[in-house]
Amino acid sequence: MPDELNQVIEDLAKRARNASLSLASASTVDKNKALHHIAEALESNRKILSEENQKDLDAAKDNGLSDAMIDRLRLTHERIDGMAKGLRQLIDLPDPVGALIEEKERPNGLKIRKVRVPIGVIGIIYESRPNVTIDCAGLCLKSGNASILRGGKEAIHSNTALANIIKEALQTSNLPIDSVQLVPTVDREALNHLLTLDQYIHCIIPRGGEGLIEFVAQNSRIPVIKHYKGVCNLFVEEEADLANAVKIAVSSKCGRPGVCNAIENLIVSEKIAEEFLPLCAKELIAKGCELKVDEKAGNILSDFSTHPANESDFAEEFLDLKLAIKVVDSVDKAISFINQFGSGHSESILTQNKSKADQFLKEVDASSVYWNASTRFTDGFEFGLGAEIGISTDRLHARGPMGLEELCTYKFNVIGNGQWK
Amino acid sequence: MPDELNQVIEDLAKRARNASLSLASASTVDKNKALHHIAEALESNRKILSEENQKDLDAAKDNGLSDAMIDRLRLTHERIDGMAKGLRQLIDLPDPVGALIEEKERPNGLKIRKVRVPIGVIGIIYESRPNVTIDCAGLCLKSGNASILRGGKEAIHSNTALANIIKEALQTSNLPIDSVQLVPTVDREALNHLLTLDQYIHCIIPRGGEGLIEFVAQNSRIPVIKHYKGVCNLFVEEEADLANAVKIAVSSKCGRPGVCNAIENLIVSEKIAEEFLPLCAKELIAKGCELKVDEKAGNILSDFSTHPANESDFAEEFLDLKLAIKVVDSVDKAISFINQFGSGHSESILTQNKSKADQFLKEVDASSVYWNASTRFTDGFEFGLGAEIGISTDRLHARGPMGLEELCTYKFNVIGNGQWK
Repeated sequence: MPDELNQVIEDLAKRARNASLSLASASTVDKNKALHHIAEALESNRKILSEENQKDLDAAKDNGLSDAMIDRLRLTHERIDGMAKGLRQLIDLPDPVGALIEEKERPNGLKIRKVRVPIGVIGIIYESRPNVTIDCAGLCLKSGNASILRGGKEAIHSNTALANIIKEALQTSNLPIDSVQLVPTVDREALNHLLTLDQYIHCIIPRGGEGLIEFVAQNSRIPVIKHYKGVCNLFVEEEADLANAVKIAVSSKCGRPGVCNAIENLIVSEKIAEEFLPLCAKELIAKGCELKVDEKAGNILSDFSTHPANESDFAEEFLDLKLAIKVVDSVDKAISFINQFGSGHSESILTQNKSKADQFLKEVDASSVYWNASTRFTDGFEFGLGAEIGISTDRLHARGPMGLEELCTYKFNVIGNGQWK
Repeated sequence: MPDELNQVIEDLAKRARNASLSLASASTVDKNKALHHIAEALESNRKILSEENQKDLDAAKDNGLSDAMIDRLRLTHERIDGMAKGLRQLIDLPDPVGALIEEKERPNGLKIRKVRVPIGVIGIIYESRPNVTIDCAGLCLKSGNASILRGGKEAIHSNTALANIIKEALQTSNLPIDSVQLVPTVDREALNHLLTLDQYIHCIIPRGGEGLIEFVAQNSRIPVIKHYKGVCNLFVEEEADLANAVKIAVSSKCGRPGVCNAIENLIVSEKIAEEFLPLCAKELIAKGCELKVDEKAGNILSDFSTHPANESDFAEEFLDLKLAIKVVDSVDKAISFINQFGSGHSESILTQNKSKADQFLKEVDASSVYWNASTRFTDGFEFGLGAEIGISTDRLHARGPMGLEELCTYKFNVIGNGQWK
């Protein structure tokens, strides 16, 4: 029985690989038409989608899932329309495939052209949000990649319905029908087997919580691009505009505490800590934010309700209305603190001093390093990519917001006139 | 005892990570000075190096290693000078770090700068050639990466002597002494442990045979960039210049059969096979090349000494004077044959027909796809990179020849004026 399941997975991966070879040379027009068909099919199948989604919601309630989990699962008409809108936005984005990245002519006359091409087959491993099925299928399709989608077991009915809609839409297109495939099982062993098939699958992108990402990174033979946790830091340096710093600190924590680009640590220069911390703490506490403070910050904020921070707090992604606060006596200390405790996602310095800012921009090791702005801007749309499949916390291939271009690789086209040695 | 060894490995990795943080902002002058010191130290320590190398050579003889293996191990004065020369060539290459890759300003006034930065810590896992120690240390140093070098057990004395020379040279430089470290053990368990330390090491590059690369890919939690086998194909299309095609076929097989960019398969259009194959076979056989032929080629070459090819021959990297020959009746067939049997390294079409060439350049899925030239040009120097750490057969991050720029990643520097939402 497990052997049969492995065979199903292997056939699916092989079909994806075959599809990827023709999808790689598909025209922009054909890809956009397919996206358009899928968007229309979503809108005209709202009823079926809601019915199938209801099965998942019922099971979730029976299994005692939390309200937050159930909310993530839910496909409202508004969310269905949102998915269709996302696909139409993809149609408007430029096709990344085929772009000439670099061209040179060598002394022997060889012309070397570096051109952008799809990666090939991309596996997306995700959790309960069914909209990921459509979002990722669309991004992979537009970038010429075949996709293998493996969603969470809570969303199996919703995902199956969405995958059927995609398949029907692909049948009326000029693209291979196997361009997008949903793994038809949520069996863990089947996932393990999928993660070994590096002869067919070229890249795995896990989207979800720490546990899922750890599991995939540990078990995959296929290269993984991780969208890992965001332990983001905001450093209010002594030459910062303090009124603006309060605004940035409060909004980058409390604006939406559950996202990866929200800050988890506030680092404050000792020289302005006495003035700044009470101003800032007042606003944060008014928003319901819990403060975890080091000793110096605790002494300054003795009139406020705070909790002492231990070292592990500074490495934690709270994803909640909680903020750790650290006081430092130099830019060097702030930088080494961030390089030790941050997760390499987004870090910001607030200062009017250009040379300190330059040092921070250069020495902080993270995907996005800010001067005088909130870390919340680390996002595909804000960076002008149009859409993103996620924010990579890895260093290889893609770092930070990952859009259509980052879903591509390149190849060299070398044009000669008979060069043989 | 294994725990102690694991601790040694972990300390070494941690020191590399710390070194990488300051190495990332080291000046070009300081990096070049260090390379210069190492080159000088190599030249002035020829005697010690030869003595230590002799220990490895003696052990190799005692252990019955093949002459080819012993030759790879040998550090002649010429080879030592070659390593020093390689380092001086690196000094002359531009520093890849800090280059502005892209810059844009967003409607909200944020300036987003994508800048090239080192990857961080790179682990190189290699086999018996001791020159890899110097070549890789030099490339990593120039690109601002700390390196962890783990060579083969046959070369342990040579590698230790080379690593000591590097360490002494680093002591007289402004770079961290832990910028280059040799793993002081060839214990397999220690290597396994090293491959799990993704909190300190950011990229693993295995250099060696299929077995080593498979082992590393299977056991590494750290992203691996594989420099895997080269099953390269040459397709002589019916509109090729046949005299030139013979030259290219013979030189790309027999010029240096043991390298990854040599061809393993010769694919010939049916229409010209009767004319071309005998011309080409004659020259190949004169060079001592064994021919493994499909049925059609066998019939045409019935007057020559050939062997029948089975399917697995077409997927094999012979690394030897052996060539598999396949006759096809269309460009489509040649392309699908290559996409099935090739290893995604280098593929070439010889033809005077531009539209067929364009189809081949577009549809063949490999790092380097040629029109009217030998596959042997896939090489860092030939591509104008100046030096290469290898030729990636992977798709993510780097594909094809991998030079200093490919040993880097990027980060975003985002400059605002107080943007908070």
